[in-house]
Amino acid sequence: MRNVKTLGLLGTGVIGGGWAARALHFGIDVIAADIKPEMEEWIRGAVANAEPALARLTFAPLPPKGQLSFTTDLKVMAQRADFIQENIPEQLPLKQRMLAEVSRHAAADVIIASSTSGLTPTDLQRDMASPGRFCVAHPFNPVYLLPLVELVGGQKTVQDTIDAAAKFFTYIGMHPLHVRREVPGHLTDRLQEALWREILHLVNDGVATTGELDESIIYGPGLRWAAMGTNLIYHLAGGESGMRHMLAQFGPCLKWPWTKLEAPELTETLIDRMVEGTQAQAAGRSIRELERLRDDYLVAIQQVLRQYNIGAGATLRSLEERLYQEAATARAAQSIDPDKPLRLLDTVVRPEWVDYNRHMSDFRYSQVFGDAMDALFRRAGVDETYRETGRMYYSVENHVRHLGEAKAGEPLYVTTQLLGVDDKRLHVFHRMHRGRDDKQIATADQMYLHVDTGAAKAAPADAKIRAKLESIRSKQAGLPPPPEAGRAVGRAQR
Amino acid sequence: MRNVKTLGLLGTGVIGGGWAARALHFGIDVIAADIKPEMEEWIRGAVANAEPALARLTFAPLPPKGQLSFTTDLKVMAQRADFIQENIPEQLPLKQRMLAEVSRHAAADVIIASSTSGLTPTDLQRDMASPGRFCVAHPFNPVYLLPLVELVGGQKTVQDTIDAAAKFFTYIGMHPLHVRREVPGHLTDRLQEALWREILHLVNDGVATTGELDESIIYGPGLRWAAMGTNLIYHLAGGESGMRHMLAQFGPCLKWPWTKLEAPELTETLIDRMVEGTQAQAAGRSIRELERLRDDYLVAIQQVLRQYNIGAGATLRSLEERLYQEAATARAAQSIDPDKPLRLLDTVVRPEWVDYNRHMSDFRYSQVFGDAMDALFRRAGVDETYRETGRMYYSVENHVRHLGEAKAGEPLYVTTQLLGVDDKRLHVFHRMHRGRDDKQIATADQMYLHVDTGAAKAAPADAKIRAKLESIRSKQAGLPPPPEAGRAVGRAQR
Repeated sequence: MRNVKTLGLLGTGVIGGGWAARALHFGIDVIAADIKPEMEEWIRGAVANAEPALARLTFAPLPPKGQLSFTTDLKVMAQRADFIQENIPEQLPLKQRMLAEVSRHAAADVIIASSTSGLTPTDLQRDMASPGRFCVAHPFNPVYLLPLVELVGGQKTVQDTIDAAAKFFTYIGMHPLHVRREVPGHLTDRLQEALWREILHLVNDGVATTGELDESIIYGPGLRWAAMGTNLIYHLAGGESGMRHMLAQFGPCLKWPWTKLEAPELTETLIDRMVEGTQAQAAGRSIRELERLRDDYLVAIQQVLRQYNIGAGATLRSLEERLYQEAATARAAQSIDPDKPLRLLDTVVRPEWVDYNRHMSDFRYSQVFGDAMDALFRRAGVDETYRETGRMYYSVENHVRHLGEAKAGEPLYVTTQLLGVDDKRLHVFHRMHRGRDDKQIATADQMYLHVDTGAAKAAPADAKIRAKLESIRSKQAGLPPPPEAGRAVGRAQR
Repeated sequence: MRNVKTLGLLGTGVIGGGWAARALHFGIDVIAADIKPEMEEWIRGAVANAEPALARLTFAPLPPKGQLSFTTDLKVMAQRADFIQENIPEQLPLKQRMLAEVSRHAAADVIIASSTSGLTPTDLQRDMASPGRFCVAHPFNPVYLLPLVELVGGQKTVQDTIDAAAKFFTYIGMHPLHVRREVPGHLTDRLQEALWREILHLVNDGVATTGELDESIIYGPGLRWAAMGTNLIYHLAGGESGMRHMLAQFGPCLKWPWTKLEAPELTETLIDRMVEGTQAQAAGRSIRELERLRDDYLVAIQQVLRQYNIGAGATLRSLEERLYQEAATARAAQSIDPDKPLRLLDTVVRPEWVDYNRHMSDFRYSQVFGDAMDALFRRAGVDETYRETGRMYYSVENHVRHLGEAKAGEPLYVTTQLLGVDDKRLHVFHRMHRGRDDKQIATADQMYLHVDTGAAKAAPADAKIRAKLESIRSKQAGLPPPPEAGRAVGRAQR
């Protein structure tokens, strides 16, 4: 089989557009064939739409992007492509005819694959020239982001075709899943369809709305399914004896009317297959290890979803809003102690802040100092509302000195001293301490400039803001000036 | 109904332990009742196991943790609890008897809820005193991390019970889903069970292994289900006319043998319900907007899973390993140009690096400079293998000057000049440039100290490492010294 430099597409719908975007992004040229000339504009639009998300999928260095070309002549595409992917409508006679035609124009070592959701390869390859190089390669929407591709061979498919197709799809960032037996719907759509038909029954019977049924997944099992399937999850649910215990305990439920789908008989053979399959998946990892892995990704996914305020992330976000609100109310009551720098931030070293040395990474110190600065700004009235008036303080210089380390989970706090306030400048000195022993582990000497963000130049701060900052400065006037402030790199006292 | 300060648990298995961990973490006291005294140790172990993951779920300020107590006397628990959650085995007569008993000891304004997966509340509340305060509250494993809880009232349940239960579960970070009609399996388990039974059929028929079936989900639909359910996903698949188009196009598939589950007839009424339901879910957002949201979370989840090298994250990681390998091979061939500082890092401003001003956050500049430093270290042989010998360079000072902004998606590069190398110290100066106009947007003046990590004190660097660094330094000897190096905050030239 050939080394793939050019991917040929037969048909250019949502799936064809997704294939084009993915292949181009990973450096493969694409030639798309469609009898409708207006589809050229369409597929270019689809590729452009996919690009922003693809550009964020990985920041690893990429080869130069592939080139996209378009033709209404299937023969031109078939002669230039090293690999052909068919994406025309799900009608068996139409697919059979088009696949036969394209196979007569393409060299015999060019793999031809079909994106069909559920038609079987034996039926599809029936009339093709060199049918051994044909297989089903079923992707999932959006093709440019989801890695799954189901590979299914028909009776005439040779193993080399499956192997070479798997290699190509891996090259463009996918996970090929070899489906070893032809069944209508392959594997994934059989499972999706079972869920879908149960949903239709529940809506039809008036039990729930589509929205309630979606919630029943996304706040619970859907979070788990992002990285572990039903079988491994149920293996975990069985405790230390895994799937076998789970089947013994919950087997009887299979007789209960919990879905419209009848279950198969739980024979010894079936139990053995389930147990052996999940043992292989566990690959020697204990239930406890797998639980930790599950917990890790469940936490991480919820934190990611919080950024987009969706599903479980929205739940987490509203919980946190309440918690921060309660803490802010408590903190607002706190007055300024003239004998001590302000303690405006208490935090904890998060596990992802730690580097290969198991210490907090250098740049995270700057992040924590930035959070302390935000707390000072909020206290002085430099907040979202103020920013919306087109004014803001920008950091111009930041000199961090590292004096000690912090480990994951350690509490930290930052104290802050105002060294200078004028109409445009703000000079601040922070000290970071470890909670457990109060050891000072870093200092930051920072200069901020007040800017008019529209004009993008320095401008005087609002009088009220300046007054608040000066009031803090004057309350702190009795504090000794930090000896480390205003020193250059390599010249500070150690 | 009462303000809940103490949660009473009836039964202490995996589910009871999960409830305890979640409630305690969010400041609720827990009293657990189990007839077996050895379950006290068990539940304390379960709470301790849940803590590491819970501690990372949110870093918002939390109220003081709740206190856990244990009793073998159901009556003691019933009299001290403000809310009672039952988690005993799924046997209807046993649950009926225990719920009736606990209801006679608990005051009438104490809600009593059952964790049952599929039994119906009307059956469960049959023999209870004050059955109006009873409902089903069905959580999902792990209860301490998954937010979903299905609330189902029986024929005697009053609405206040559902409302107060929803309020309590929200307080401890959950998403209550009110299931409006009693059906065996509620909603979630009906969908999970449909999937599960289809899996059992496919394994029973010898079509696939449990591992293959899990892969068919986690690399594709499972990623989507973490934040959007089947209905909203299919609404998107329908293009601009959404669910109605989807049903018209894919309705005929319902007659195909794609699962063992028969579909209901697609009547006009059913179509209308599906369309109205998904319109409500879309809540005025266009297909394009929803697609963007879907793409955003699919990208973000895959990046998170990469950290744990699981599922789609493992696919992404191995793709990136290949890409980095290819780039490293290309870069190794690059020689040092004595007329220019070394360009060791090319990167892109990631969307999550940007703050409320839409500019790269201050601390991300330090992160990028740190990445450039890592590239210099790798080039000089200061790598994982060297670290394992107990030696490393630590940052002692870092003076960053901010001279310009960068927006999300902008390419950046960093050039590096070695200012000084001795046996222990390394003085480096970096400049960060924007790719589009080569504008210098920041500089970093950095001092590193070579340390023996075991003894935690300064120690001379390996001779080979020092020779490599000095060789770079000597090749750069003709470069003018940066005027900004060695200046203090507030005194640098602008």
